Amino acid sequence: MTNQLSLGIDLGGTNTSFGIVDANGCILVKDTMPTTGHDTIEDYIATLKIKLSPLFERVGKENIIGAGIGAPNGNFYTGEIVFAPNLPWHGVIPLAKLVSEALLLKTTVTNDAKAAAVGEMKYGAAKGMKDFIMVTLGTGLGSGFIANGQIIYGHDGLAGELGHTIAVRDGRKCNCGRLGCLERYASATGIVITAEEWLEERYDETILKTNKGKITAKLIHEAADQGDALALELYEFTAKILAQSLADAIAITSPQAIILFGGLAKSGELLMAPLRRHLEENLLSIYKNKVAILHSALQDADAAILGASALVNLYPTQKIN
Amino acid sequence: MTNQLSLGIDLGGTNTSFGIVDANGCILVKDTMPTTGHDTIEDYIATLKIKLSPLFERVGKENIIGAGIGAPNGNFYTGEIVFAPNLPWHGVIPLAKLVSEALLLKTTVTNDAKAAAVGEMKYGAAKGMKDFIMVTLGTGLGSGFIANGQIIYGHDGLAGELGHTIAVRDGRKCNCGRLGCLERYASATGIVITAEEWLEERYDETILKTNKGKITAKLIHEAADQGDALALELYEFTAKILAQSLADAIAITSPQAIILFGGLAKSGELLMAPLRRHLEENLLSIYKNKVAILHSALQDADAAILGASALVNLYPTQKIN
Repeated sequence: MTNQLSLGIDLGGTNTSFGIVDANGCILVKDTMPTTGHDTIEDYIATLKIKLSPLFERVGKENIIGAGIGAPNGNFYTGEIVFAPNLPWHGVIPLAKLVSEALLLKTTVTNDAKAAAVGEMKYGAAKGMKDFIMVTLGTGLGSGFIANGQIIYGHDGLAGELGHTIAVRDGRKCNCGRLGCLERYASATGIVITAEEWLEERYDETILKTNKGKITAKLIHEAADQGDALALELYEFTAKILAQSLADAIAITSPQAIILFGGLAKSGELLMAPLRRHLEENLLSIYKNKVAILHSALQDADAAILGASALVNLYPTQKIN
Repeated sequence: MTNQLSLGIDLGGTNTSFGIVDANGCILVKDTMPTTGHDTIEDYIATLKIKLSPLFERVGKENIIGAGIGAPNGNFYTGEIVFAPNLPWHGVIPLAKLVSEALLLKTTVTNDAKAAAVGEMKYGAAKGMKDFIMVTLGTGLGSGFIANGQIIYGHDGLAGELGHTIAVRDGRKCNCGRLGCLERYASATGIVITAEEWLEERYDETILKTNKGKITAKLIHEAADQGDALALELYEFTAKILAQSLADAIAITSPQAIILFGGLAKSGELLMAPLRRHLEENLLSIYKNKVAILHSALQDADAAILGASALVNLYPTQKIN
């Protein structure tokens, strides 16, 4: 039996991670590169090809049977990225076609968060679950909904945009052009916006004040670890907004668990503890004390790489009908 | 071949409809009774049994292979009604067991809106669709989500409570104990509450004013048909709130269509026209001009009866795992 390897690519708003995965779900080799800094998608793919070259050499490119890509607004049915507000390239990008031509590998595309959901279901915290919601808290907020053991793709492949449900009516302006989207509050970007807004209004003693204008989610995490009151309140507020939206999503799909992943989720119990509390406060009684809030069981970008790579084996090319 | 008949029961907040359905989806006989006015669920089932007796005689009870019931908060996995705020009986009701014992028929229970969704998919406006949302606008707001051609039951059978997503943060008190649930605005009950609230505040010329305290959804429909400005504004407002919530639900499951059913949906274009307009205004760009807003293609309670009856054939008894 020849070794059946898959290439998994996680195309994020800021960084791209990629790895070559064997049939047992082990990532044999992996690397990362910035997503930003490429004027066109063609430039980006050219750089990706150069970065992949040493990985291909190490495992033998002839052993790779295909590529799976998780990308914001990636459409499983068409292989396109469709109007992704957090990427440098706009409009409709025929990603599967371009990557397939550049790498000479059969290529499947899906939403990055859906890819992560498949990764968690096959190898991570959702092993054995048939109904759960994957939430990625990075530059934006991505989501993958699993029901009856299957990804909810929707009729057009574009389901699972929890980040673009309205969390605050007439709230913050979103990159999508509307007001109050969840991802403008509950994401690494969102918590920083809240911090900057609050520093305009408040004059408490806080570590964050001296960093006004250059606050990051990481800095808020560090400040909270040192007991900074404003930083802790930022987690409390962010968790509350996220919990309110999750309570509504739970009323639709009644999942066994919510699995959190991504930059902001790395703050661990700083976010998870108030999130669990606010979620229980907001849930309809029939769902109370039934939905686990879990952290991804896969390291760093592994979930998305594994999930993207699993697309190669799990799903044949499928066109919208 | 013997005739394989199924009993379908639609247990609504106000009325119960039931019919006996043949293998081709024809309702051979049907009748209705009030759901209210029975102190206990046992009293209700006793009355139901009496009302069913002449129907059983006409088709031959021995030809009936089972019963399916659509009921608020009905749980497919357990056969129970679980804390249904719009029913006269509270707590957990082992409906499948009680009906099965009373009628001596194998009995399956599901949410009334999920039953209607199955009815539409098999016989109605959703024929051939794999991804759609059924919304029933009656005493409350029920919903059934279909993804990948299957009902989304959730891990515990209790998915699909769109009526209990929060439409207005800190809004109207709901029977579920929380504030601002969608069904307090977008339902036959909700539009009447809005009318009564507005009559407290406004003194315009309106047909509704003389009926203060005894307004019904039907009366609002009649007033709107006569061009009453307040009645038309009530539809506009109700449609807007519903559209905002539907835009969020669409971002989760990306359905091909929303199918409306129930008392308030009978107002036709009075509701549908502003609903379509507000929905397009609220949708994320990737979903615009793609989601059809359709009226149920089945008469009156037929969708729910047909859907409930289809449970008998489609789904074997299944326990939560």
